[in-house]
Amino acid sequence: MSQSTVDQLGFLRRLRAVKDYTTEPIAEEAIQDILEVGRWTGSGANKQPWEVIVVRDPDVQQKFGDWGAKPAATAGVVLLIVSASDGAAFDEGRLAERLVLGAAAHGLGSTVATLKGEGPASARELLGIPPERRVTTLVAIGHTDVEVRGARPKNPQARKPMDEFAHWDRF
Amino acid sequence: MSQSTVDQLGFLRRLRAVKDYTTEPIAEEAIQDILEVGRWTGSGANKQPWEVIVVRDPDVQQKFGDWGAKPAATAGVVLLIVSASDGAAFDEGRLAERLVLGAAAHGLGSTVATLKGEGPASARELLGIPPERRVTTLVAIGHTDVEVRGARPKNPQARKPMDEFAHWDRF
Repeated sequence: MSQSTVDQLGFLRRLRAVKDYTTEPIAEEAIQDILEVGRWTGSGANKQPWEVIVVRDPDVQQKFGDWGAKPAATAGVVLLIVSASDGAAFDEGRLAERLVLGAAAHGLGSTVATLKGEGPASARELLGIPPERRVTTLVAIGHTDVEVRGARPKNPQARKPMDEFAHWDRF
Repeated sequence: MSQSTVDQLGFLRRLRAVKDYTTEPIAEEAIQDILEVGRWTGSGANKQPWEVIVVRDPDVQQKFGDWGAKPAATAGVVLLIVSASDGAAFDEGRLAERLVLGAAAHGLGSTVATLKGEGPASARELLGIPPERRVTTLVAIGHTDVEVRGARPKNPQARKPMDEFAHWDRF
């Protein structure tokens, strides 16, 4: 196996959701890089059924937190995904995964979080988003607070075992 | 910017869908690595609403191709995603994105493709998948046929420009 294969597999495997952030601001260059990674995400028939709103206003972030996306409140930046419609959920998942990986490439922690209940409707009104759009998912990004994160209890069985995940030839 | 940031951003940005494969078989070690990357994908409330069927039977792959997922027919291996239900589409998108990145880490080409029309129902019957499951998406993986791929016409504007993708502060 080449060194770049080892490095890239390690990069992908190390990714974990991070919800504890320091107050250190995020460099605009990093945000631009993450957006550029997201912009090139593949989608069905290359429809790119998405846009992203970059939010760094603490008041708006606090509202996202109140609306169910808790990590948004303390993040350094929030990328709110605005999709064409609920039919775009699969492609939106592809985009979200690339945004968290783009953040990880910059050594930043991040997590996917969702607006719940009245959250999507409230976010549409607050940010001027047309009513037909899907506004469910955001990616919260920040410098990882290593101390707070390290103090959390660890989940001993964080993923199902391989033989429950993958089947060969048949279900 | 550190060298690993440059390398990882480059790895993410270089990813493109590949639909032209040679007949060279895929090493089982590579398949295991790709599955391992997929197994650790994040999901809402860590529900992991998915399983994967590894398909290397040319007859089954040809059927997937006939059912609308054309690249499956000539791929070295197909990873068919079986999800809990249609509500899992977002998480399924995250998983699919990681599977294509895992393949790219091994220098393999891949693409996301979907079963259309009667395809999902036929695949369920053929592979023993319960009827309530979502069976829409597969990832086709193979050694890139550089010659055939290079001969295809290039799309000059493959993604929308940044100012149509990202907004700052408001929609």
